[in-house]
Amino acid sequence: MSALCLNVSSVYSLSEEGYVSEGSPVLLYIDRRRSYLVRAVEGEVLHTHKGVIDLGSLVGKRYGEYVESHRGERFWILKPLIYDLITSFRRKTQVIYAKDMGLILVYAGIGPGSLVVEGGTGSGFLTAILAYHVRPSGRVYSYEIREEFLKLAKRNLESVGLLEYVELKNKDITEGIDEVGVDVVVLDLATPWKAVPHAHRSLRGGGVFVSFSPTIEQVVKTSEALSQYGFIDVWTIEVLVREYKVKKGETRPEMRMVGHTGYITFARKILD
Amino acid sequence: MSALCLNVSSVYSLSEEGYVSEGSPVLLYIDRRRSYLVRAVEGEVLHTHKGVIDLGSLVGKRYGEYVESHRGERFWILKPLIYDLITSFRRKTQVIYAKDMGLILVYAGIGPGSLVVEGGTGSGFLTAILAYHVRPSGRVYSYEIREEFLKLAKRNLESVGLLEYVELKNKDITEGIDEVGVDVVVLDLATPWKAVPHAHRSLRGGGVFVSFSPTIEQVVKTSEALSQYGFIDVWTIEVLVREYKVKKGETRPEMRMVGHTGYITFARKILD
Amino acid sequence: MSALCLNVSSVYSLSEEGYVSEGSPVLLYIDRRRSYLVRAVEGEVLHTHKGVIDLGSLVGKRYGEYVESHRGERFWILKPLIYDLITSFRRKTQVIYAKDMGLILVYAGIGPGSLVVEGGTGSGFLTAILAYHVRPSGRVYSYEIREEFLKLAKRNLESVGLLEYVELKNKDITEGIDEVGVDVVVLDLATPWKAVPHAHRSLRGGGVFVSFSPTIEQVVKTSEALSQYGFIDVWTIEVLVREYKVKKGETRPEMRMVGHTGYITFARKILD
Amino acid sequence: MSALCLNVSSVYSLSEEGYVSEGSPVLLYIDRRRSYLVRAVEGEVLHTHKGVIDLGSLVGKRYGEYVESHRGERFWILKPLIYDLITSFRRKTQVIYAKDMGLILVYAGIGPGSLVVEGGTGSGFLTAILAYHVRPSGRVYSYEIREEFLKLAKRNLESVGLLEYVELKNKDITEGIDEVGVDVVVLDLATPWKAVPHAHRSLRGGGVFVSFSPTIEQVVKTSEALSQYGFIDVWTIEVLVREYKVKKGETRPEMRMVGHTGYITFARKILD
Repeated sequence: MSALCLNVSSVYSLSEEGYVSEGSPVLLYIDRRRSYLVRAVEGEVLHTHKGVIDLGSLVGKRYGEYVESHRGERFWILKPLIYDLITSFRRKTQVIYAKDMGLILVYAGIGPGSLVVEGGTGSGFLTAILAYHVRPSGRVYSYEIREEFLKLAKRNLESVGLLEYVELKNKDITEGIDEVGVDVVVLDLATPWKAVPHAHRSLRGGGVFVSFSPTIEQVVKTSEALSQYGFIDVWTIEVLVREYKVKKGETRPEMRMVGHTGYITFARKILD
Repeated sequence: MSALCLNVSSVYSLSEEGYVSEGSPVLLYIDRRRSYLVRAVEGEVLHTHKGVIDLGSLVGKRYGEYVESHRGERFWILKPLIYDLITSFRRKTQVIYAKDMGLILVYAGIGPGSLVVEGGTGSGFLTAILAYHVRPSGRVYSYEIREEFLKLAKRNLESVGLLEYVELKNKDITEGIDEVGVDVVVLDLATPWKAVPHAHRSLRGGGVFVSFSPTIEQVVKTSEALSQYGFIDVWTIEVLVREYKVKKGETRPEMRMVGHTGYITFARKILD
Repeated sequence: MSALCLNVSSVYSLSEEGYVSEGSPVLLYIDRRRSYLVRAVEGEVLHTHKGVIDLGSLVGKRYGEYVESHRGERFWILKPLIYDLITSFRRKTQVIYAKDMGLILVYAGIGPGSLVVEGGTGSGFLTAILAYHVRPSGRVYSYEIREEFLKLAKRNLESVGLLEYVELKNKDITEGIDEVGVDVVVLDLATPWKAVPHAHRSLRGGGVFVSFSPTIEQVVKTSEALSQYGFIDVWTIEVLVREYKVKKGETRPEMRMVGHTGYITFARKILD
Repeated sequence: MSALCLNVSSVYSLSEEGYVSEGSPVLLYIDRRRSYLVRAVEGEVLHTHKGVIDLGSLVGKRYGEYVESHRGERFWILKPLIYDLITSFRRKTQVIYAKDMGLILVYAGIGPGSLVVEGGTGSGFLTAILAYHVRPSGRVYSYEIREEFLKLAKRNLESVGLLEYVELKNKDITEGIDEVGVDVVVLDLATPWKAVPHAHRSLRGGGVFVSFSPTIEQVVKTSEALSQYGFIDVWTIEVLVREYKVKKGETRPEMRMVGHTGYITFARKILD
């Protein structure tokens, strides 16, 4: 698969025509389990077990049309959504899920113009969603101590044209946050409670603290630290998603589901 | 409580200073169960069972500070988040939940610049979240046949400064959609399957169809209509949220939870 | 409502005829939310907001028939199931749920002949289910320190004819268990970890330890105590039940559900 | 592994001594994922990837002790519980789960002495649990049209000493039920609604109907048939179980869980 290196205008703005141009990102979709994120580049090919696709042949097609492999299999040409893009990220870390990201966006009020501090960056999965939603006037300040993750996140964000909305910082968020007056601090750390004092200093009055943690002990420690620093409206939830098999006469939930990703703790900063 | 009539700049932009000015919206927060959305207006008061608050006294305070009622009870002065604002909407309809809205945003890729068709408007709850997230360059086209709901939604959207991003239409979406080439069609209707042909015509190639339905029969009928119109990537989920009581030695999920709001069906349009 | 005082033969054995006799327990059923557990006694009446029922008129009726109140409302005459009986218990404590009891029965292998130690008795709710299932050759040894609960449990168990399978003990199970070689120890205590050493001594080799606890901290402490005492196969689950509204065209889960009752921890004793 | 052929007394009665005797069933337990159900038979061996176990060496050991493989790995000697026994059944069908069986037992009041009709038998998994709980005075009448399943179930039930409480019938339960006046009819069929008229005729007044179905359409059809035949107290639930990883500092639900097995519908028969 050719490396992705897009800029945001090509990704998110609906082109006048809706035609694939040279270098455009394309999601080649077979079915819910099989799809490929590629770029439309003359002279390149994609090898799949459903046959070979000439990636140059995508240029000039309209999004929504299909292309056939040399074996006659149909691949649908889709303009990738932000979620398609981030799930194709190279990653070295467990990633946060759509269900959790969506709730964080809504409850923390993260939208265009929001100033968000994130710790840690990891593979840039959550960073990308945050950047996508704070565009064009907001900004994400993302902290990561492990240099190789920061490089990976940078490459990932660049590939989807979202790097310009993010400031990546090779610093330990449990030792300090440079920014003050921010709207939201979002943590996905092993020791979120250690960043609570810094989040308190960084947030504007009424600003929102968010922490995502896999274990209940992390939740308890973080909630205690939040109370100690005077945060109000401290609460914790978890989100479960069930997928359904829908077919007349055979409708039922899927037999397997994700049982847990993590708990999400919210709080608001007050002034003293 | 004084009527809310804000414009978006006062609501969402962090003012340089973070001070409450005359006419600003304020969330007066006591605890997770009790808070009041008001405006800081000289000469007005809020009566609560925790005592009376002089709303004029809020002017000049910083967000994050508190004010006391005449009985000495503390009310925290918070800048309302979008979710605080919409949950204060007057409503005549069952409303869609944060958990469902968040997942729709992420999976449908709704962000700044998105063009979204919504049917029906209801009290404008989902409309407001959509408008908040497509700002400033996107737009929500919202269909509603019941005139009194449209008026209510208009008043609600105006009160939070989001009306300028929404085109409210007193039309039946199951009879047609005016817009073409849109990114997403979101339905919260009793008969979503009747709007599927129009959604198909309205969506751009690869555009995302979303339907929120309380009953499984609605899901089955809608999924059948989607298949009939050639949509791909048709899938259905439901989202469950559990809230926790977190306190060292007493940590457990809350005894009561919301057991169901609705199923969410997604699909993508292809061209033929 | 007349006091219940039945013996087990009248309750659980299907009488040859299936006719209500003087003194028999009857569940008067209106709908899922309204039913009354009574005894068929000449000269007694039941007052409900659906009218008055002459309880003497039940004698000679067949189970499955109905009786009408003086206002012409229909009440179905049902032979109470064990679960109907225990949910009518007077209680002073939070009770364990059917979903949890069922799983305990199956995973701990509690059936006819089982020797079970229980701590604490509470209102006798779980005690009754255990006694019902270990009949006729098994036995439940139930520990309770609070005398007024023990009296309540005794009255409850007597009323449903199950007292003969239970030995109620006014002792603190965290200070010792008299019985040895038992099949199962089931705890529903504030401090189950304190009873672990005694459970270890009481259980036969391979016997099953079960603890029901509302908080996660109880689970962690109990699991640690179990490991310390060499128990194997230590595992913890929670059970969620969703009820459905089933009607063609309107089928969906109920809007409200029980979000949590407690966690159940299982383990098996080994010899050293 | 040697074939199991036990009689019930050796399985369920605690022997005076708790010693393994020639021919006794033994669960050799390594950890939660690995255990082997065997018989203690002189001259037989069990080959595992943890080494070879001499099954004759088990004779004379006490339940709760361990035995070592030739490689020095420890296997715990446990007296198998009913659930250990049935999960070792050879099966050709999807089986009903502990969580579902437990709830059926409690809500349908199935205990010692109950008369239960079951359709269909399948591999005998649910049959065995029913038989275990109605012992010694109750009885299970189990219908199965596919002869090879009936043979399999017979072998399975015999191997755990429960066949004497079961009457296996090579008949189609959707065409009729021979028994009348039974306490409970439990169905695990593709078309449970077809058996509703026969269940109605078979049940005593107030008797309990139970149906387990994977799809929601089965539930709707069955509920309609139940209403048509005048059943009351018709209700449907589903049961979800989450397993936890419990370890101080790392406690959380397991990442994967069973998302669905089936819906359970209950109803009670009345007389007209």
